[in-house]
Amino acid sequence: MADDKKLTTRAEDFSAWYNEVVLRSELADYSPVKGSMVIRPNGYGIWERMQRALDDMFKASGHVNAYFPLFIPQSFIAKEAKHIEGFAPELAIVTHGGGKELEEPLVVRPTSETIIYHMYAKWVQSYRDLPILINQWANVVRWEMRTRLFLRTLEFLWQEGHTAHATHDEAEAEALTILGIYRKFAEEWMAMPVLTGLKSDSERFAGALRTYSIEAMMQDHKALQAGTSHNLGQNFAKAFDLKFQTEKGEEAFAWNTSWGVSTRMVGGLVMTHGDDNGIVTPPRLAPIEVVIVPIWKTNDERPAMVEAAMQLKAELTDWNGRGASDKLRVHVDAREGIRSGAKYYEWELRGVPLRLELGPKDLEKQSVFSARRDTRAKAAIPRAGAPVAVAALLETIQHDMLAAAKARREAATVRGVQSYDEFKEIMAGSGGFVYAGWNGDPAVEARVKAETKATIRLIPDAEFRSATAPTRCLVTGEPAKHEVVWAKAY
Amino acid sequence: MADDKKLTTRAEDFSAWYNEVVLRSELADYSPVKGSMVIRPNGYGIWERMQRALDDMFKASGHVNAYFPLFIPQSFIAKEAKHIEGFAPELAIVTHGGGKELEEPLVVRPTSETIIYHMYAKWVQSYRDLPILINQWANVVRWEMRTRLFLRTLEFLWQEGHTAHATHDEAEAEALTILGIYRKFAEEWMAMPVLTGLKSDSERFAGALRTYSIEAMMQDHKALQAGTSHNLGQNFAKAFDLKFQTEKGEEAFAWNTSWGVSTRMVGGLVMTHGDDNGIVTPPRLAPIEVVIVPIWKTNDERPAMVEAAMQLKAELTDWNGRGASDKLRVHVDAREGIRSGAKYYEWELRGVPLRLELGPKDLEKQSVFSARRDTRAKAAIPRAGAPVAVAALLETIQHDMLAAAKARREAATVRGVQSYDEFKEIMAGSGGFVYAGWNGDPAVEARVKAETKATIRLIPDAEFRSATAPTRCLVTGEPAKHEVVWAKAY
Repeated sequence: MADDKKLTTRAEDFSAWYNEVVLRSELADYSPVKGSMVIRPNGYGIWERMQRALDDMFKASGHVNAYFPLFIPQSFIAKEAKHIEGFAPELAIVTHGGGKELEEPLVVRPTSETIIYHMYAKWVQSYRDLPILINQWANVVRWEMRTRLFLRTLEFLWQEGHTAHATHDEAEAEALTILGIYRKFAEEWMAMPVLTGLKSDSERFAGALRTYSIEAMMQDHKALQAGTSHNLGQNFAKAFDLKFQTEKGEEAFAWNTSWGVSTRMVGGLVMTHGDDNGIVTPPRLAPIEVVIVPIWKTNDERPAMVEAAMQLKAELTDWNGRGASDKLRVHVDAREGIRSGAKYYEWELRGVPLRLELGPKDLEKQSVFSARRDTRAKAAIPRAGAPVAVAALLETIQHDMLAAAKARREAATVRGVQSYDEFKEIMAGSGGFVYAGWNGDPAVEARVKAETKATIRLIPDAEFRSATAPTRCLVTGEPAKHEVVWAKAY
Repeated sequence: MADDKKLTTRAEDFSAWYNEVVLRSELADYSPVKGSMVIRPNGYGIWERMQRALDDMFKASGHVNAYFPLFIPQSFIAKEAKHIEGFAPELAIVTHGGGKELEEPLVVRPTSETIIYHMYAKWVQSYRDLPILINQWANVVRWEMRTRLFLRTLEFLWQEGHTAHATHDEAEAEALTILGIYRKFAEEWMAMPVLTGLKSDSERFAGALRTYSIEAMMQDHKALQAGTSHNLGQNFAKAFDLKFQTEKGEEAFAWNTSWGVSTRMVGGLVMTHGDDNGIVTPPRLAPIEVVIVPIWKTNDERPAMVEAAMQLKAELTDWNGRGASDKLRVHVDAREGIRSGAKYYEWELRGVPLRLELGPKDLEKQSVFSARRDTRAKAAIPRAGAPVAVAALLETIQHDMLAAAKARREAATVRGVQSYDEFKEIMAGSGGFVYAGWNGDPAVEARVKAETKATIRLIPDAEFRSATAPTRCLVTGEPAKHEVVWAKAY
């Protein structure tokens, strides 16, 4: 934290700002293995809270956790044709183990469909064994050439759900249930608004029937795919002979889904809420929600002020108003030899949602001075009943952060574009989400991508569609098959 | 669960019993990669509860979590001489990534000292940056030739703590604090009594100054090392140039500790408590503490009995007597077409600590019939106030399981052995922990191991030493340097 040099601003260079803010708020660091990152305690604390929130939602909807091996026989990856096509260029291969060359090289999992459906085939005999609703929290490896901290790394942490069902419709319902959980998590926990919808064929997961995703808009007007949920159909069941006996005694292939979100979301959080002073963490995901900074002028004043700060902390953390399992997370910064201003700077950089300052005058006035991280608004809070006021303020911050992010997304959204030329201008300029008609032809998608770098983020769900659906394909003028959302993306 | 064949008994073949019970209670399964296992939801549920309990204790003692890369440059492993010597034969090596041969092969971490201390060297400048108290939950790979489910697998899950301190004494205190946490966890959560103490030089971690461990006694009278805590001295700090400026402005190497427990503990739990009917899970680690089996004779009776069971479940899970974050974990088995006896058999196999049976007669008598998994004792519980009675019974089970395991360990412990011949007889026969004097010579250790397969498990802490310390080395008759505990071990 010794580095007091000002951050590059977002306006100057968003990409440089992002790297600096991630490094200087100590969310992560580069590692000696190119493309691999170290997630430092500040970043991991956010990830842990993300995990807990998602895991609770998965369990509440009937899922259980398990763990499958890191290494997958190379031959497994090749069993599903589209799957190998999609992942072959990104694989890390173990060729030696225990001092010997292996007979069959092992792949370090880029995702676990193949090994998991191999196991399910062993476990499932009858319709009574279905559904299987398993999730795993794991690390995966994809050999990426151009990496960015959190957003695209050689190794990343994620959860991958893998389910097996008796019918197509059950699998489809599962994929959509999970999409709903991802959306709820993004909005209610990350305060990050998302669009939901279906991927076009070219952006579909390698081996899936249909891929759904949540898509968020970053402050540089580039989209971030923050989570995907796939209806895999029977593709993997056929490749791995995952069959079951139906109630009628017939033999049938199971229907699968898979779905995942990763540490990429930490990057999404930074790019959704961060400002030129550092990251801004939504209270529900903040390892520290409130930092109390006792203020003293002379050394004589210090003991009393530190004690007052500790008393305030005790009162806040003892408070039970959010339930015993959700106590306020409070830290007192009583360090000596560091100016208060430097402390403020540091906690702002680290994104703590609420700062409370407690000086001799506040003590006298029986109040506490509060500073919000999101709006930087400052106000005195009466000392009596502080826990209730602080908890309410944190809720307001959580709420306001979502509203602000939603407003930014709307400001970065264009509907009713009249021509492909206008579209190209937007993509060359301000960017953002652009809604337009599309004839459904992958060739059009490829052309737009080549010419503007924009891709179809999704075919939006009903709720996100324009009031009046576009009737023509923006590029060809042919009848539109879908309204789609275009953007340049991470 | 379709397999109704009787389990091999522990007396017939303990090793076969262990494998069968792990597979049939669906804790784990073999994977297509030799030596790697799949941890199934029943086993992972226990591991999750282990993680939560340990993680809470780590955090309460000031530790935070982080995540370091899976891949380590091969050159790193070689930097600490003893470390490479210890781990070289067990490494898995990635030679290809993204379709190309790598310039420097990458090692899949067998443990993370090297990469972590490399990072600490980057992060630490001054004594103000110390201590660093970081833990990570991760998978590691060691190329094992002879594997056993949970006990020794090619890949396993664990936590590894890595700390850096300004002085030897602080590092030593940290290593002992963690040893205490491991002991507390083993006793209070796993109901598995352990000895604590120091490892002899030959059993020390590759690169450590001192290794402490907790050692448990399994029902086949073989010992299990269930956790280790290492004072690494300055060995890794010197290898990775982890220096800091002291308060006096001098440059000094940091002092490190590392410590870990793994999924091996699930195997320890099985071998400590399991019986010829299946596994027995201590209530505090059981994903399901109570299974309620409604009983009906005719289909007409079923709805009322299922409803009564659901009501009982609701009452149990609503009860708040253990605090909001520790609700009773209850499952109702209302499956049709399966006899009650088959259900009992299945839940016993899976080790659920308490079964409640609820039939029309129980309803009439306003009572519930209970069956403990540990002692198989059965008793009626009054229906009114069931939650308090059930919670008390679970506490009794937890307590009794530890007491029973302690009694088994004591029965498998021999002190006051008179001669090396007697020692050899014991090791060839009943086995167990044997306390004896040792002259401190590694050659004696090596000889005993070669002749009896027994090793020095530890030099016990004061609390575990014999009232009268042996004065002579059991093997050579020379003056004893330490009292040590011998056993054959997993």
